[in-house]
Amino acid sequence: MERGRIICAGLGPGDPDLISVRADRAIRGARHLAYFRKAGQQGQARRIVQGMLAPGVTEYAMEYPVTTEIPFDSPEYNALLAAFYDGWAARLAELARSQEIVVLCEGDPFFYGSFMHLWLRLRDLVPVEIIPGIPGMAGCWTASGTPITWGDDVMTVLMGTLPEAELARHMRRADALVVMKTGRNLPKVRRALAAAGRLDQAWLVERGTMPGQRIARLVDTEDADCPYFALVLVHGQGRRPQSAEAAE
Amino acid sequence: MERGRIICAGLGPGDPDLISVRADRAIRGARHLAYFRKAGQQGQARRIVQGMLAPGVTEYAMEYPVTTEIPFDSPEYNALLAAFYDGWAARLAELARSQEIVVLCEGDPFFYGSFMHLWLRLRDLVPVEIIPGIPGMAGCWTASGTPITWGDDVMTVLMGTLPEAELARHMRRADALVVMKTGRNLPKVRRALAAAGRLDQAWLVERGTMPGQRIARLVDTEDADCPYFALVLVHGQGRRPQSAEAAE
Repeated sequence: MERGRIICAGLGPGDPDLISVRADRAIRGARHLAYFRKAGQQGQARRIVQGMLAPGVTEYAMEYPVTTEIPFDSPEYNALLAAFYDGWAARLAELARSQEIVVLCEGDPFFYGSFMHLWLRLRDLVPVEIIPGIPGMAGCWTASGTPITWGDDVMTVLMGTLPEAELARHMRRADALVVMKTGRNLPKVRRALAAAGRLDQAWLVERGTMPGQRIARLVDTEDADCPYFALVLVHGQGRRPQSAEAAE
Repeated sequence: MERGRIICAGLGPGDPDLISVRADRAIRGARHLAYFRKAGQQGQARRIVQGMLAPGVTEYAMEYPVTTEIPFDSPEYNALLAAFYDGWAARLAELARSQEIVVLCEGDPFFYGSFMHLWLRLRDLVPVEIIPGIPGMAGCWTASGTPITWGDDVMTVLMGTLPEAELARHMRRADALVVMKTGRNLPKVRRALAAAGRLDQAWLVERGTMPGQRIARLVDTEDADCPYFALVLVHGQGRRPQSAEAAE
């Protein structure tokens, strides 16, 4: 009797050429393919694998029931999302009894990935394999043209959804910073960076490694035009061996 | 006239199957291949690409002049390393006038990578392309079988070379932790985690995604047997939508 399983394939930062060899093979060979997307949109994950899919693949678009209109910490949001993940986990678990299903996940699946919520519900029911990916932030700092960390720099990753004071506190303490989930949080992130004395060092990377990539000093950007796929970076300035004449 | 360039290929965490499609292609097509290693050893980067190289490739083993016997913050160490990087940068720049050279870099090149020291010296002399890779830490947390960050968890990356008090301070403040460069710093890292009240939550991942991988709770390991390729992880426990009956 055939035994199925679930493979979560990390897609990396957005350029299909930056998918791992293993995930590339899994995606091209998939007969059942699932991915998250906002209702009514093609979705970023599906867009990344455009042109890679085998003929006849069965697709499962897992459409989020809510967007950002409901506060993320409200009981209503929690209940809606929990039911959404419960429903898809049950459906994928049933399919995975006899089929291999590839689930796409942008970036690295175990680093703030949506798939983690399915994994929580599936791990005791069916075999689940996770293929790591290049995190979006690594694509962005590479695109920025400057290393993010040197020597013994401390790097902290923050979500733009955190309270302003908490953001500022962490921004003061680390050498290198990555701020994810900017979007509508960008004015708050900007104020927190200013309070921490780091605003002048910050860069905004939009659509890193993807068509339409834009990299700019944060002070040169407007709050209004920050897309969802944007990260704020502050590069570390740590130790680097220099010959005496090259040292500043 | 032929114009050369330098491509730095991120190798990811160690499993050759986790190299990106672009880096895989660059490595397999390379006619000139450079990599760092300790003197007298094959080197981890070279080991990862074993079996992938084209016949007749010219190899350049860039052997570090020092190991950890000299304190990393001493002027002697700085001078030796600077001369080493200066020398190889000059040699690669000369080669890259007419040839394409692929330089291997474990993990992600712009995240604490050794190549950054060559990049600093080469960027104004020859075209340099960086291909990002899956950072070693992402391979390790995937290998640990548990997501590293949820919801709005704060993640901090620390080097085991930092002073104990500074380690402990950062360990108290972040939700998820990654400690790199453990090795001989492991007793100090352990004490800092204990001081921060995080020791019981810490995992040691050795040789993540590679042959000989070992994953254990840090409290169940000995200081004596910590290899260089080991990371300490503390997983975040942030927000996750749960149905009412599943919530604890």
